[in-house]
Amino acid sequence: MAILPDVIDFERLRVDRARLWRSLEAMAEVGGLPGGGCCRTALSEPDGRGRDLFVAWCREAGCEIGIDQVGNIHACRRGRSPDSPAVATGSHLDTQPHGGRFDGVYGVLAGLEVVRTLNDARIETDAPIDVIVWTNEEGARFTPPLTGSSAFIGKMSVPFIHSVETIHGTTVRADLEKIGYLGAELPGTRRLACFFEAHIEQGPILEDEGLTIGVVTRIQGIRFLRVDVTGEDGHAGTVPMDRRSDALVGAARMITALHDLALGSEPETRITVGHIEVAPNAASTIPGRVEFSVDLRHPDGDRLNALHVEIDRRLHAVADSMGLEVASRIVIDVAPVVFPKTLVETVRQATARLGYRHRDMLSGAGHDAMNLAKVVPTAMIFVPCKDGLSHTEAESAKPEDLAAGANVLLHALLTQALTGQTGMTRHPA
Amino acid sequence: MAILPDVIDFERLRVDRARLWRSLEAMAEVGGLPGGGCCRTALSEPDGRGRDLFVAWCREAGCEIGIDQVGNIHACRRGRSPDSPAVATGSHLDTQPHGGRFDGVYGVLAGLEVVRTLNDARIETDAPIDVIVWTNEEGARFTPPLTGSSAFIGKMSVPFIHSVETIHGTTVRADLEKIGYLGAELPGTRRLACFFEAHIEQGPILEDEGLTIGVVTRIQGIRFLRVDVTGEDGHAGTVPMDRRSDALVGAARMITALHDLALGSEPETRITVGHIEVAPNAASTIPGRVEFSVDLRHPDGDRLNALHVEIDRRLHAVADSMGLEVASRIVIDVAPVVFPKTLVETVRQATARLGYRHRDMLSGAGHDAMNLAKVVPTAMIFVPCKDGLSHTEAESAKPEDLAAGANVLLHALLTQALTGQTGMTRHPA
Repeated sequence: MAILPDVIDFERLRVDRARLWRSLEAMAEVGGLPGGGCCRTALSEPDGRGRDLFVAWCREAGCEIGIDQVGNIHACRRGRSPDSPAVATGSHLDTQPHGGRFDGVYGVLAGLEVVRTLNDARIETDAPIDVIVWTNEEGARFTPPLTGSSAFIGKMSVPFIHSVETIHGTTVRADLEKIGYLGAELPGTRRLACFFEAHIEQGPILEDEGLTIGVVTRIQGIRFLRVDVTGEDGHAGTVPMDRRSDALVGAARMITALHDLALGSEPETRITVGHIEVAPNAASTIPGRVEFSVDLRHPDGDRLNALHVEIDRRLHAVADSMGLEVASRIVIDVAPVVFPKTLVETVRQATARLGYRHRDMLSGAGHDAMNLAKVVPTAMIFVPCKDGLSHTEAESAKPEDLAAGANVLLHALLTQALTGQTGMTRHPA
Repeated sequence: MAILPDVIDFERLRVDRARLWRSLEAMAEVGGLPGGGCCRTALSEPDGRGRDLFVAWCREAGCEIGIDQVGNIHACRRGRSPDSPAVATGSHLDTQPHGGRFDGVYGVLAGLEVVRTLNDARIETDAPIDVIVWTNEEGARFTPPLTGSSAFIGKMSVPFIHSVETIHGTTVRADLEKIGYLGAELPGTRRLACFFEAHIEQGPILEDEGLTIGVVTRIQGIRFLRVDVTGEDGHAGTVPMDRRSDALVGAARMITALHDLALGSEPETRITVGHIEVAPNAASTIPGRVEFSVDLRHPDGDRLNALHVEIDRRLHAVADSMGLEVASRIVIDVAPVVFPKTLVETVRQATARLGYRHRDMLSGAGHDAMNLAKVVPTAMIFVPCKDGLSHTEAESAKPEDLAAGANVLLHALLTQALTGQTGMTRHPA
């Protein structure tokens, strides 16, 4: 039972760039939008079809498919020691409503490409390899986001997730059943040795600096707030301007105040109002109620807290000056995450060995890896995307960069399999 | 065939205050909301039930019901000269999504109460009396508003109105059929001698000054704009603050700028943003597109134009400073209306004769009377409402004020019937 029987082959092993690109293109047709992007919001009918396509590909590649109670998909490539914890990778297939073709999808299909590459090379590993699709990373069709990985690490219960209502008035459980992904397996029962997630950067740094790989060392903290502004409905034609309690004007002044706060803070600060609901939202009625989201991010936990305090102060200052009521509460709170040095070093060395120009970096976006990091050694691999754009149909990445990231994933995964008490052998042809 | 056979009776004639109040209460239960208001948006199922109730009452009161092709209801009390143009009154039964129980409804049920009062007193008029329900005055469920009266005066065509899509994705024609109000009659074919509309003031003046009746001499001009702001979708966690094209922050600065413009203008100015749509409206995506409404009102046509120019200037100033695109266009444009002196004098004299404290006033809100004024002599009667509130569930009015307005309507209507080549006689008991 030889360990690393053919070191030359291992170092020369590369994914099939064209095949990876074709898979990305085929997946992009599922829920494809006119502008070139995708709409496969979580557990919608297109998300179901995207999952079906992935599962079909994985079965073709010889993987066993397991579905858990929140719809996470485990595509498992058998190892020689089936009871060993799996070396895992993956990401998500769901998208924003006007999403791109790479966010999440790339991490899933890079994992599949690694499996296909190992198959072609007839390489057998000791530990199984698990390519995972996490349910609802985006949180666009229902919240909280990162649902599947949160269930996996025990942060959210299955009954809670099942009862969540989507923006289409359905429940998560009903939608899981409808698209055929309500599995029997309890989330989190699979043992993982480690988790790698490959992803487009979703920011401009790698492209600006002419680099191919970002070795992600940490993920910034994220706090989602829900803000409710209450004024009084009134007739647009009759109520004098100085007698109004216009909740939308109040919200407008608040959004402006938060944007000014972010612009005036250190460059790492991110404050975004992405979602707003106005009631009654009729052209000739002064709006009496507005609800909006605040997405606050910062890599430093203390600064995150300080910014939150300042946000609340500014919200109340506007409300007080206009005779409105305002209430804000935390909907999601994810502390900044630092990935373990050893696994990050595995990614860094694989990248160096493959000869790609790279740098360490911070992830501005949240990822399922943020959750996984709480229970298993976790690391991330970034590749450049055009103009740093993501969460938009204009999201774009180069086939060569995507292949480079998949090669780093392939090598980091195999290296980890060796140091992590697993190994690989080559099948007889 | 005596004219005014019983002058004493005529001067003593009054509506039944309790019956008028009971009818208003009963109608308020149709589409009633928890806060005491109503949701009977135009051609919705509750609007259909409200219409059915009104039609049943009118049939009970001996009226003939005519429905036209856009759903306007004519409840006609026969006169001795059925071919004479009808002396008409009415308003609308549809409400805002969080509407009150009096806006529109009062004008319709005051008309019905006049008919019931004439029935009780066994008074026969020469000309028919037409109590009209105009379709979709509010424009909350579909636009343009004032649909029914616009069709009646020939300003909008029936095929256009039928093709309009509601916010629920249905067409007006399909909804008319569904609720049973797609009539055969061509709008505008009925001949009217004049039109009176009774309405709550929807403003604070009468209450503040302790008056019972507002003799409306004119209606301010209304211009509805639709504004489209275009930036670029992006990821809330990654795109640096200074590299964003956030259409919602742009819209927020625009809404603030328009509010400041209105606050700094003469007191008659009204500028309201009541409706906003954000895309993709997802918490962790920088919004790339925002559409919002602007409701601009002023009693003076030249000032209305000047304010519109200034609004466009401020919209572009914000867009230019933020690298966004903005486009605005006029959706509805109604010039200020001055009611004819003679019909206004009829209302003023009826009010004086009845002994109610009153004043001349301007209508801040738009009304179907604005349309009718273009084709027949038209006037309006206002009664006070609590705190000037309207387009809100908190809308409230006193039974005695509502009865006073209905009495003025009764007397103005009958006076007009005399001066307008019609007359009345008393039936034998």
